[in-house]
Amino acid sequence: MFEFTLEATCGRARAGRFVTPHGTLLTPVFAPVGTQATVKMLTPAQVEEAGATLILANTYHLYLRPGDERIRRLGGLHRFMNWPHPILTDSGGFQVFSLAATRRVDDDGVTFKSHIDGSLHRFTPEKAIAIQENLGADIIMAFDECSDPYDRAYTRIAMERTHRWAERCLQAKTRDDQALFGIVQGGIDPQLRAESARFIASLDTPGIAIGGLSVGETKEETHAMLDIVTGILPINKPRYLMGVGTPEDILQGVARGIDIFDCVLPTRLARHHAAFSSQGRINLRSAIYSDDERPVDEACDCYTCRHFSRAYLRHLIIAGEWLAGTLLSIHNIRTLTRLMEEIRQAILDGTFEQRLPEWLHRWQGNAKRKMVNAESE
Amino acid sequence: MFEFTLEATCGRARAGRFVTPHGTLLTPVFAPVGTQATVKMLTPAQVEEAGATLILANTYHLYLRPGDERIRRLGGLHRFMNWPHPILTDSGGFQVFSLAATRRVDDDGVTFKSHIDGSLHRFTPEKAIAIQENLGADIIMAFDECSDPYDRAYTRIAMERTHRWAERCLQAKTRDDQALFGIVQGGIDPQLRAESARFIASLDTPGIAIGGLSVGETKEETHAMLDIVTGILPINKPRYLMGVGTPEDILQGVARGIDIFDCVLPTRLARHHAAFSSQGRINLRSAIYSDDERPVDEACDCYTCRHFSRAYLRHLIIAGEWLAGTLLSIHNIRTLTRLMEEIRQAILDGTFEQRLPEWLHRWQGNAKRKMVNAESE
Repeated sequence: MFEFTLEATCGRARAGRFVTPHGTLLTPVFAPVGTQATVKMLTPAQVEEAGATLILANTYHLYLRPGDERIRRLGGLHRFMNWPHPILTDSGGFQVFSLAATRRVDDDGVTFKSHIDGSLHRFTPEKAIAIQENLGADIIMAFDECSDPYDRAYTRIAMERTHRWAERCLQAKTRDDQALFGIVQGGIDPQLRAESARFIASLDTPGIAIGGLSVGETKEETHAMLDIVTGILPINKPRYLMGVGTPEDILQGVARGIDIFDCVLPTRLARHHAAFSSQGRINLRSAIYSDDERPVDEACDCYTCRHFSRAYLRHLIIAGEWLAGTLLSIHNIRTLTRLMEEIRQAILDGTFEQRLPEWLHRWQGNAKRKMVNAESE
Repeated sequence: MFEFTLEATCGRARAGRFVTPHGTLLTPVFAPVGTQATVKMLTPAQVEEAGATLILANTYHLYLRPGDERIRRLGGLHRFMNWPHPILTDSGGFQVFSLAATRRVDDDGVTFKSHIDGSLHRFTPEKAIAIQENLGADIIMAFDECSDPYDRAYTRIAMERTHRWAERCLQAKTRDDQALFGIVQGGIDPQLRAESARFIASLDTPGIAIGGLSVGETKEETHAMLDIVTGILPINKPRYLMGVGTPEDILQGVARGIDIFDCVLPTRLARHHAAFSSQGRINLRSAIYSDDERPVDEACDCYTCRHFSRAYLRHLIIAGEWLAGTLLSIHNIRTLTRLMEEIRQAILDGTFEQRLPEWLHRWQGNAKRKMVNAESE
């Protein structure tokens, strides 16, 4: 279980296979986000049809509502939400630090108030593992603290805490049908990032996550940190860049040796009527689409683009119809899953590096970062 | 085109086939409502999978937004909304009288203000046909006036106006690939209903609609009017009971010789978290379903019941997730389309009359009428 096979590399880009209890993931892979045990506005059948093979669900949200114990009693998250393919859960750390009403962190854990009803709760590394074992995802995360990347002194404290917590998570873990990933932190400090990458690698978890990036730093800083971290991580384990991202950020991540991505962007943009396209991001609410018979993206093979015009989507948006969000979510997810399929094939063919500049150029108009990863879905 | 073949009768219940340009309808048939060129929260693929073969769209809404001329330019309603099967449009009359902000009716037509922006518009019989020809549905309706059934004096005026308008609609019609149905009015007055049925039958339209029922009168009054009208209408044409209804009302309609039904109920109930079930209507918001592993209805074969528990639906509702409305819409539509399939088979088998009491008993708990047909979707 959790074997990772590297099939090909092209420069630092990697094509691999990661075996999980609910299926083998072909990497690089993009996971849509299903925060509350649903990829918003889509049935699992639609998520599948959009080409997704892995989804992410949020530990913090599911712990609060409907409760991880309840999900365990109901047969676990796969059965609860009818997603028979691999699932990844985060540790809850990021949400506690970005969403919870108030919080107090100490070396043992975090006490916080629910953003839903203000009730008081406490997460520790042991608790984060217990919750994730109740949920039953294939890939689970060590509890971590994500800090302001520009606060260098605190970033060290948070990183060291993250390391201690990762050890405690490994100790606490009881299920052998879940892959626990340690999380590399260290903000945008090259030395801290290198130290964190070495420490997390030393824990010998079946995969390694990179946290605390795409949270406000510049693209150059992100890329520099990725260069440092992926240069240190073992090649025989999957690397997961948390909360990324745009088509451009994914391409930059793959080029630096990342294997797994997740982001709320495709579904969140859809609810704001925006669509990825090979001509740059477009917003279907605009009156210029009122009579436009073309699909959202003529290069797309999704259900939405095969069947509906921009004029129809614009009508749905103006008329306040939910279907617009559903159709655009399908399109945006498919855009990313198709990009991943093309990337993977290019790595296998040895053409990824050669095609990268063209791809970066094609997708750059989709790369506004502001909305990305500010919080969970 | 528009041949109606009566395949079997059982008592007054009828099983037939109605040929339209976009396919042959097996009757009795129930049409979900897609007011704004979308059955709310569902893709056409989901509507199809839920067993629907005919849908209704609203002339009033589509005229105002996105405009019937625009839909014509974009290839007509079937192409616009990607529904390749039969479509029925109403005449706009019911919405003008129930939704428009203010209105002034005269013998030539109705002047009204849009409920969206207060702009001034005028519908005449000729205009209602022109709009419906632009939309391009298979089955279209004559422009009619629906009056308060308890205002007997006005009901006669409205009925006579409806008859004159039906004649003008027939004159105005230019497309021969659309079946124009006249509409029987007459409120709850037996004499007016009989007079209207005779007059509309005399127009020799390829089908006949019955309007102005299920708008506030008692069930006994509805049934009495149906008995009178279907006793007069020719047997060789489909009869469409507008805006009905609940499972019980559909059974009562079929038992009185009705062939076509439409109603917003399955999708509107779904958005209010309510589900039809063979145990009576249930609301999935209730805490009693928090840990309920059963499907919404154990007797149901829909996508929702095959894959999701009541506990999951309850979670989605409490978490404010749109998917709840989608999954319950699928279930509610499928419940009615399956009921129609069972009814049709029973008519063909000659067992409908025998099974009717059991069916009425089984479905009676779903028959609250209050929310039905108060306005369009």
